Amino acid sequence: MEIIQAQGYDVAFGNEAHQYLGELLNQQQYSKLIILTDTNCNELCMPYFLANLPTTVPFEIIEIEPGEEHKNLQTVESVIQAMLELGADRKSAILTVGGGVITDLGGFVASVYMRGIDCYNTPTTLLSMVDASVGGKTGVDLGSVKNCVGTFSMPKLVIVDVAYLDTLEAAQLKSGYAEMLKHGLICDKDYYMHLRDIRAIDFADLETFIMHSVAIKNAVVSQDPKEGGLRKILNFGHTIGHAIESYHLSESEKETLLHGEAIAIGMVLEAYLSMITGRLSQESFELIKTDLMSIYTMPEFTDKDIENILEWLKFDKKNEAGEIKCVFLEEIGGASFDNLIDKNLIFRAFRESLKEGVK
Amino acid sequence: MEIIQAQGYDVAFGNEAHQYLGELLNQQQYSKLIILTDTNCNELCMPYFLANLPTTVPFEIIEIEPGEEHKNLQTVESVIQAMLELGADRKSAILTVGGGVITDLGGFVASVYMRGIDCYNTPTTLLSMVDASVGGKTGVDLGSVKNCVGTFSMPKLVIVDVAYLDTLEAAQLKSGYAEMLKHGLICDKDYYMHLRDIRAIDFADLETFIMHSVAIKNAVVSQDPKEGGLRKILNFGHTIGHAIESYHLSESEKETLLHGEAIAIGMVLEAYLSMITGRLSQESFELIKTDLMSIYTMPEFTDKDIENILEWLKFDKKNEAGEIKCVFLEEIGGASFDNLIDKNLIFRAFRESLKEGVK
Repeated sequence: MEIIQAQGYDVAFGNEAHQYLGELLNQQQYSKLIILTDTNCNELCMPYFLANLPTTVPFEIIEIEPGEEHKNLQTVESVIQAMLELGADRKSAILTVGGGVITDLGGFVASVYMRGIDCYNTPTTLLSMVDASVGGKTGVDLGSVKNCVGTFSMPKLVIVDVAYLDTLEAAQLKSGYAEMLKHGLICDKDYYMHLRDIRAIDFADLETFIMHSVAIKNAVVSQDPKEGGLRKILNFGHTIGHAIESYHLSESEKETLLHGEAIAIGMVLEAYLSMITGRLSQESFELIKTDLMSIYTMPEFTDKDIENILEWLKFDKKNEAGEIKCVFLEEIGGASFDNLIDKNLIFRAFRESLKEGVK
Repeated sequence: MEIIQAQGYDVAFGNEAHQYLGELLNQQQYSKLIILTDTNCNELCMPYFLANLPTTVPFEIIEIEPGEEHKNLQTVESVIQAMLELGADRKSAILTVGGGVITDLGGFVASVYMRGIDCYNTPTTLLSMVDASVGGKTGVDLGSVKNCVGTFSMPKLVIVDVAYLDTLEAAQLKSGYAEMLKHGLICDKDYYMHLRDIRAIDFADLETFIMHSVAIKNAVVSQDPKEGGLRKILNFGHTIGHAIESYHLSESEKETLLHGEAIAIGMVLEAYLSMITGRLSQESFELIKTDLMSIYTMPEFTDKDIENILEWLKFDKKNEAGEIKCVFLEEIGGASFDNLIDKNLIFRAFRESLKEGVK
């Protein structure tokens, strides 16, 4: 069993990781386990999870509705209410089994239930395996403002078993893949150059790639756990990507974008900003744009759309005193943070960077 | 200016503490201050607070409705929503000005807003000065279950100025006094013997007593910040007291008990349990009972009331695996924790300990 040591806990890979999880749970003598999942995952992943988890601790399953629109304080309240009714106490633990919504929300509930209980994560989507499994960020949205309520709170163990990915649709896989591409773009050129041609990827190697992404994220987070500086580079594509995602969440007539889809658009735009502010070469920008547009569909944004998206930027957690700060690529494989950026330039980026063939 | 050093922050006493707070705020270069208060306090305390606070940082005031019934996740959500609209960012800070509801809820909001911002507390009630000012417990209620959602999160500074107590009604003063009596009962016999005759207390000495209570609580908390053991003794009177408080909160036809009033009843009951299980002498119990009944009104509890209160005990945070654990007095000035207690004994305590003159 491969293990990556994160901040005070292990990320364990493979089917055997379930065994490791079971042993830890039995050692800790928990009074009760609360398994938090969503209705999809309860059907598709829970039989495999339970069949592979050897534990003698009594458990209860709480399931919530799937989807980012349920990642909010109302769901937190209903989960806590259910936990109280099920008799969960300070010696109970939460096991999350699901995608990023479940691991973010479950981690947050664990960090505040009776002022904090233990949490174990079993991410079942590619996105949550490569992104939510490391770093201790928990949280929920408020309205459509992403992750504005949350904590830094480390799980006790994360297990990553690619068998769960068999249940995923292609769009979900591509959503997670965007974060892997991001890891390459900000930190590791060779990795990016390997990943960029998705058609050439052998998905039998996926576990290796996931481990590489987890290792990259872990190396960054270890140097700056509370995001005082360096960790911000993990937000490449996210300043504008989150605003796009929030806008689509808030407009009921817009189709919901998956997180990775929004981040892919954000990466093209922020790479463009990196170029026009003199950081990134035009050649590198064109390569990134071509790659991302070959994998992800770029929606058409009207001027009205763009104006609305710019309004959402004011809620970005990296802002200070009303100024928008953005991660720029200096090269493929290198990024800088805390770059002030003007809204007019972002507007221009929307209009100029997303068109096919525009140089 | 007198200062008590707590876990990584100071508790500063007297009017000059405002000056100290102002200096700290200016040093930190916050983008914005959010002053959280309730409508009563905004009228009665805010003019004094603002007149005494020398700071150049821009601020906004958010006020909520007063009362324990508003200490919940809905209020948390509305405060966070207001903060987003006011442009609070990760470099902003919260200043709480109010009683325990404000310091508990404001501290919780600060600990989760954008995954945590700084918090400064100015308690304005006796209860919040002696209890909520030290220990880093934040939280809100869910339904009528007290403080079941929260964090351990230290403020950056607490200022205690007895001038705020001039705005308090006598019942509120007595509510805070119950926690001071508790500090004596669990840790300091001399202090208890000094406080027990409330009519003999010179309220000009109140600041000295408050400092003594803060010092006692701080000494306990410093040894066990996360309440793994010793800190539990601060819950004397609270296992049953919280259940009584929750029951009264949940029953609209019952008058709401102030926290200290409920804890005073809980202390008589738990002292009685300490006696009948052979820990506390009958003489000490009688003394405590007489003292507390001379200060606090003990409601009449019907058998139906008691049964309902016993139901609330299952939500106590000290419970493990469904067993009720309680703090006992071993003597006046000494306590033990993690004592298992049977519901039938608690029922008996309600029926036998609260009657005037019953031995």
